[in-house]
Order: sequence, then structure tokens, then C-alpha cells
Amino acid sequence: MKIDFNADVGESFGSYTIGDDEQLFRYITSANIACGFHAGDFNVMQTTVKKAKKHGVAVGAHPGYPDLQGFGRRELTMTPSEIYNMVVYQIGALRQFCEIHGVPLQHVKPHGALYNLGAVDQKVAEAIANAVRDAATEAILFGLCKSEFIHAGKRLGLKTASEAFADRRYSDEGRLLSRQLPNAVLHTYEEILEQVREIVFNKRVKTATGNWIPLEADTICFHGDGQNVAHHTALIRDALAKEKVQVLHVGAPDDSTL
Amino acid sequence: MKIDFNADVGESFGSYTIGDDEQLFRYITSANIACGFHAGDFNVMQTTVKKAKKHGVAVGAHPGYPDLQGFGRRELTMTPSEIYNMVVYQIGALRQFCEIHGVPLQHVKPHGALYNLGAVDQKVAEAIANAVRDAATEAILFGLCKSEFIHAGKRLGLKTASEAFADRRYSDEGRLLSRQLPNAVLHTYEEILEQVREIVFNKRVKTATGNWIPLEADTICFHGDGQNVAHHTALIRDALAKEKVQVLHVGAPDDSTL
Amino acid sequence: MKIDFNADVGESFGSYTIGDDEQLFRYITSANIACGFHAGDFNVMQTTVKKAKKHGVAVGAHPGYPDLQGFGRRELTMTPSEIYNMVVYQIGALRQFCEIHGVPLQHVKPHGALYNLGAVDQKVAEAIANAVRDAATEAILFGLCKSEFIHAGKRLGLKTASEAFADRRYSDEGRLLSRQLPNAVLHTYEEILEQVREIVFNKRVKTATGNWIPLEADTICFHGDGQNVAHHTALIRDALAKEKVQVLHVGAPDDSTL
Amino acid sequence: MKIDFNADVGESFGSYTIGDDEQLFRYITSANIACGFHAGDFNVMQTTVKKAKKHGVAVGAHPGYPDLQGFGRRELTMTPSEIYNMVVYQIGALRQFCEIHGVPLQHVKPHGALYNLGAVDQKVAEAIANAVRDAATEAILFGLCKSEFIHAGKRLGLKTASEAFADRRYSDEGRLLSRQLPNAVLHTYEEILEQVREIVFNKRVKTATGNWIPLEADTICFHGDGQNVAHHTALIRDALAKEKVQVLHVGAPDDSTL
Repeated sequence: MKIDFNADVGESFGSYTIGDDEQLFRYITSANIACGFHAGDFNVMQTTVKKAKKHGVAVGAHPGYPDLQGFGRRELTMTPSEIYNMVVYQIGALRQFCEIHGVPLQHVKPHGALYNLGAVDQKVAEAIANAVRDAATEAILFGLCKSEFIHAGKRLGLKTASEAFADRRYSDEGRLLSRQLPNAVLHTYEEILEQVREIVFNKRVKTATGNWIPLEADTICFHGDGQNVAHHTALIRDALAKEKVQVLHVGAPDDSTL
Repeated sequence: MKIDFNADVGESFGSYTIGDDEQLFRYITSANIACGFHAGDFNVMQTTVKKAKKHGVAVGAHPGYPDLQGFGRRELTMTPSEIYNMVVYQIGALRQFCEIHGVPLQHVKPHGALYNLGAVDQKVAEAIANAVRDAATEAILFGLCKSEFIHAGKRLGLKTASEAFADRRYSDEGRLLSRQLPNAVLHTYEEILEQVREIVFNKRVKTATGNWIPLEADTICFHGDGQNVAHHTALIRDALAKEKVQVLHVGAPDDSTL
Repeated sequence: MKIDFNADVGESFGSYTIGDDEQLFRYITSANIACGFHAGDFNVMQTTVKKAKKHGVAVGAHPGYPDLQGFGRRELTMTPSEIYNMVVYQIGALRQFCEIHGVPLQHVKPHGALYNLGAVDQKVAEAIANAVRDAATEAILFGLCKSEFIHAGKRLGLKTASEAFADRRYSDEGRLLSRQLPNAVLHTYEEILEQVREIVFNKRVKTATGNWIPLEADTICFHGDGQNVAHHTALIRDALAKEKVQVLHVGAPDDSTL
Repeated sequence: MKIDFNADVGESFGSYTIGDDEQLFRYITSANIACGFHAGDFNVMQTTVKKAKKHGVAVGAHPGYPDLQGFGRRELTMTPSEIYNMVVYQIGALRQFCEIHGVPLQHVKPHGALYNLGAVDQKVAEAIANAVRDAATEAILFGLCKSEFIHAGKRLGLKTASEAFADRRYSDEGRLLSRQLPNAVLHTYEEILEQVREIVFNKRVKTATGNWIPLEADTICFHGDGQNVAHHTALIRDALAKEKVQVLHVGAPDDSTL
């Protein structure tokens, strides 16, 4: 039994620091690196790819809307072809740092409002999947379980990874509850561990209304900007290890013994 | 006898249009495409690479400072390693559009204040040359004749192209006169043709003080944002053709019969 | 009989020029000046307020979303209190230039997506009306006829001006057709003149489906960025003058003989 | 004997937090509030003015270069008239929030590279002093002791306040050592207290080379983004209080018993 742990990293910008990447890199297996639009900048990208390599963490591009003030969490009306161009640009920029450090671009995971929109909007999901196919054919497209990303990726013959969230509450429809809602985020270690265990062992998750829905995930997202996130991730990884679950980057070969 | 004609293109941004690229593409042989920092955006880059391909014009990355308001003409204090990262980022983004359209990245030409600074600052020139070597090994580094760019590029084993300017006045030291000065720019077709002819046939240029200095150029820059620039470029190209000069992109094989 | 002609001006940015303000100022009576977020910058604002004064055109703040690439035409998810802060900031910046030039801030007109959203969203309209009340109590709030802006402004005791559009097609509900639609914009002088005449003389407008709806307007918007707009505006102003309509800024005293 | 303690606050941006303003406000008497160019945004400005009012701390505008990535610490080539416009814009925006909260704009203090440039460049200092005179006539211009700011302000009849730095090392010429230099910043509480005491009681400071130079200061800057800065400021304020020094905002009337 195996699972991938991913987190958003490289979100600092200029003099502004956010998240404790150094800690987080010790416990995750896939890193979603911001590409200078909603967060991150060229210096942070350089540093973050280097850190990922040092820690043996697989690298992914984490493209978002060009909206630093909103941290990419505000939707912007863009045509599919504009979204395609925007994602191609960001993948290209990050891939360049990957090539310089000799690390593969394992995956592409859209960020924030772009992730939420593409999960339910077929045209947006297709625009992004097309960008991945054209700019990083070998990369795995990360998307919410059963979302339009997964459908669009499969139609294009891309590798895909279905993603679940360790600390986000789900609706009965399998969507993430909006961050505007008070119970959108799980805060305690116990709640988070419980949700992760249910996802890994029972392929299901308890929704905001108390129902169970099936959820088959290849990778689990831990939020990089939460407090104690590195600490929680470490504890959960240990807990899973004791139950013989391999925490392994999603692009690892099946017989990997990493 | 042959020479390359280059111009800055792809400088529009969002709803803002600048330059008449469509016209210019008919007469130049190398295009310096803005990479979204001092000008251009991901949509403009996509469109511009496509246009360059259509017209058979060689594509180059034209990285600049992150300063849209100043159009990259204002110097920003950055360390060499920040400049390296900034140039890597922009090359990566543009190269991605090139790969998608199946056109090689022929060259890299720094823009504006970055071009002027690197021409005289060895550390900056080296940072940029390193970025080219690491991000686009096969690309030709464009730099002012005899500038630090040419020296740095040669030391690193890069291909370089020495550049002269069709419509900019030179100082006795072979530098461009600052745009702040009233006589920095040649405006009439006759002046520009005369300067180009002297560069091509006599490998020299007349400076602001009336002296002649030697100037051996592989490529001549025509400013994309001037008025009538496309028209002038066309006329000059015709004039040179009558004198058996091939106007050809600088990366063309020596026996090219394009 | 009198009417105000307004247009968006001051939309240039850095090296980027848009609109022919110099021409437009000769024919309009109220100027909506961009405040550096969706367009314009501090230099352009300074120049534009000066030009408005020179031409005797009344000045208004034209706040928009912080989205230069999208020219403020893309909606951004913001809470009412964020919108309030954003509008206060932009009014304050523009008002400073007005005070320096000794011209009153006649009005505030939200731009683009903010204008469209506030027209139908009561909370957004109230946030903006509150910002006007707190930052420019004496200013007139411009909003689409019968829109939430007009309602919110009246509830707060603000002066309001109902606005119609010279060259935009209306829906049967009195909204502007989306710019995405092919027939959203009137292009010929004849169509535009006809729509203006109907608004001024008959207080009605013909919708996209051919129906007539009532429309009582205090001010008519001419788009600053269209082609020939200054020319059209001049002709229409002349045409109205022949029919004894005074074209006068909306804040003019009733007995004004300007 | 009295002295003003000032600090840069309101430097957070969107999701990015920097500095512990809440703590700092308990110990300073004048707040330099970022205006959305090098740091801060409209939401942060609103909140910060409110906090300053709550704590009875005097408010100042802290205009800087439009360079969020560089935190306003990188010089940008701008003409004096562009600098004037830029400062007018930022003062106007902040003043609007002040007026809404009914607090006076006590002072204007340029930030970072703009502060350093204006300290030695007469034209820049005059551009900024002109902006203060035109946009906030009653405000006090803060500038480095004996700098061009103080000269320019006095020539224009502005109120000025000479500023010293609690934790920055001085050159023999009375300038701040560049932050690039290893000893530019004092880190320990003891060093900082010693420097403050020498400034307050002996009107002098020890330079990097060990010399004493005279330094007559009206206000002392504590850096808002340093670690432990609030704690240090509190301790130093207490230490001074024991020696009968009133820590009081610089615009306080002379007989103030605040």
C-alpha cells in the first residue's frame, strides 16, 4: 500500500516569507512549486527546486492566476486559450530551473481558484490539460478526485493523479468546502490523521454533513501555509509507516524501493 | 556579404498595443521577443512566436527587468545571482512557446537597462551569459559590439553576435548615447540608411562628436517602437540587396541560400 | 434640455498609450480618470487632471480592479470591505491631484467589471457608495440607469447620475450586452447618434431584440478607447446643439450657462 | 528632554505578513505606514491607520518605489517630476484613510532606496518636499539628520524632523552603512540601547570606524521588520523613561503632557 504526500511550497516572494518549506520538505514526497504568478518569484523558484532536489522530493509546477495580492485564490475571467498560454508560460519557467538542476518535472498541479474552477469546468480543465501535454508531456496532471482535470487528462492520454486533501472538509458531492465557510478546514492533528487514514485504508471520506463518500486518491495534499503543518505531516507519515503504508512520490516506478 | 536585421517585438501587453509587429516581421530576420517582465505577456508571447514562425524570422528571448511601467529602461539594483535567476525564468518561459511551435530559440538579447548595464558591467554580463549557457546552450548571445556581453559569452564558449544600432547615436567610446540626450536617436531615413551602410560596408560608425570609430557587427537592431520603422527597414533592406548584401538571420548556416 | 457627455480617459500606462484624450477632451463634459489600478499611472493621472482643467471638463475618479493585464474587465472575488478599501484608496489618490490643481472631484464612476458587478450586486454597490460617501461626500456617484448603484447612492443620501451608453447595446432588462457578444458594440456613427437621440429626446433605447425600454439618463458614456470616438462625439454634440440640447457636465448648477 | 520613536508598519501584503505591528504600536509614537507601492495594500492601510488611532500613535505616509519584490530597496531611475507624482499619489491614498478615521497625517517619511537617494540628491529631495508641501502642507518631512531632505524641507517652509536610526551603523559622513555590509545593522539590545542613549543624551553617534560624530535627532527609527524589535523598543523606552526622557510623537505640541 502506498500514497504520495504533496504540499504547496516556494510561496515566498521578495522579502515576504510564507510557509516553512525547509521543514515540510522533510516529510512530503511531491512539491508543488509556485511559478511567480500567484506566489513565488524567480529567486524563490531557483532555491526551492534546489531544496527539493536535496531532499529527494519530486518537483511539480504549481501554476496560478497572476494575482499576488489574492494569492491566486480569486477567480479571473479568462478564455481557455488565455489559460492555456498562462499555464504554458509558468510550466516553461519552472521546467527551466528543473533542467538546470537535473530534476524531472514530475507533475503539474493548478493552484487555488484555477484548481477549483478547472475541477468543475470542462473547458478550463481541457485548456490546462492541453498545456501540460504540450509543455510537459511526461508530467502527471494532479487534480481533485473525479474532477474534470482527471477526465480531461485521461482523454488526452496524460498520466493523472487523483488528489485528496488532508485538512479540507468535503461536500457530499466530493468538492472542497469553500474557505469562506467556518468548517472548511480541519485544524487538529487528530481530525487530520483520521481523514488521511480513511482515505488511505478505506478509500472514503466523511463529508461536512456526516456522510461517507468514496474517494480513491493517489496523492494527499498537506497545506504548506498552515501552522504546524510540517509537524502534523511528520506524525501522520510515521503513523502510516507503522501500518505498512509507503509514502512515496506518485511518479515513482511501481517497484520503487525508495 | 551578409547581415542580420533584428528588432524588438511582442511588446504589447493586455489591452495595450505597441509597435507594428506584423509589418516589421516582413523585413527583419531576427526577432527579440519580450518575455512578460518589461513588456509582453503570455498571450502576446504565444502570438508573437507564431507570427515569427509564419514569416520565417528567427526567434530570440528578450529578457528585461520586471518593470512594466518603466518598459525595462530603469536600472534595478540586483545581485548577479538574482539577474541569473531572472534571465533563466524568462528564457524558460519563451523557450516553452518556441518548443510548442517547433522553432529553435536562436538567440538571447537582454533588454533596455539590463542591456546597457551588462554591456559595461562584467559581473552582470557574466550572470546573463551563465543563464544563457545553462538555459539555452545553443543560443547566440546578442550584445553591443565589444561589450562585456561579447567577452563573457566568448569566455563561456557561447556563440555571440555583435550588435550595432541602426538609429542610435554612438559615443566616441562605442557606447549608445543615453536616450535622455536630444540627439540620441536618428530620425530620418537618410541618416539611418547612411549609418547602416557605413556599418555594413566600412565596419565603422560616425559618433556624436563627428569622429569615426570601427564597429564590426553581425546584426543590426531596428527599434520596433519607432514610427515608420517597418517602412525604413524595408527600404534599407532593399537598398542593401541592390548592393549584394544578404539580409539573413545570424544563426543561419554559412552556406545558407535563404 | 441638457445632457452630460462622459468618457474614460487617462488610461495610458508608462510607455503604453491608449485613447486620444487630447481630442476627446474637446467634446466631453465629464472625464472618468483611471486611478492606476486597471489603467493609468501617477504620471498619467497628473497630466490628465491638468488637461481636464485646461479644457474645462469636470473630473471624476474611475476606480477599477487591480488588473492591468485585464484592463479591469475581469471580475475578482473580493469582499465588500475589500472593495470599499480599494475604492477609498483610488479616490484618495486621484483627489490629491485634483486638490493640487484646484479642481473639484465631481464624480466617481466604477470601471469595467466593477461597474458591471455593482450594477446588479447590492452589497458591492453599497460598498462603493459607502466609499464615495466617506472619501468624497460631495461627489456624484455615476451608475447604470436603475442599477444598484443608483439605489445604494440614494439610500446613503449621495448625489447620483444615471448613465446610458452611446455605443453599447442593451438587453431587454436594461443591462449592457456582454462584450463577448458580437453585437455588443455599435460601430457606425449613424447607429450611435440614433441611440443618443432616443435617450435624450425620448428617454428610451432599442434593445438587442428590437424592443424599446424606457431609459432616463443624466449622462451618456462615450468610450474613450474606440476608434473615431472623438470624431463621433463631436458630431453628435453638434447634432444635439442644433436641436437645442445643452451638453453640460452633470454637476453644473441648474442655471449654468456654460 | 523628549524624543520620538518611529517605525515602519503596515508592510504586510495580501496573504503575506511581515512585522509584528500590534506589538510595535505599543511602544512607538510615530508610525510610517506603507502606501501600497513597496509594501502594504489598501486593506492593510485601512487596518493599520485604525490600529495607530487605537494606540494613539501618530500616522505618517511612507511612500516608496513601485517595487514590491525589492521591498522598495532598489533604486529606480525616475525624473524628479515622476518622483513628485509618485509621492503625491501615495500621500493622497494614505491621507484618505486618515481622514476617514479622523486622524491627522502627522508626517511623511520616504522609504528605502527613495529615502537613501533623497538624502544625498538635492533634486530628488526637492521633488519629495514639493510633493509634501502640495499634498500635505501641515505634515512634517522626516529625513536623515543633515540630509538634503532637511535642507529642501526648510527651504520650502515645511516642518522637518531629523531622524536617527537605533540599529543602523553610521559612516563617518553621517550616512547609513549599506545593508550589503556585514556590520550595517546592530543586533543586540545592548548595542542598540547604547546608540539610542548617545543620540538622546549626547547628541552624537559612534561610526563604523569608531569615531564620534555629532547627531541631533528629533525622532529615532526602530525597524519594524527586525526580530525582537518590539521587545527592544519597549525596553529602551522604559530605560529612557527612568532617565526622565519623554517619548512623544514629534508633532506633539511643546507643552504636551501626553
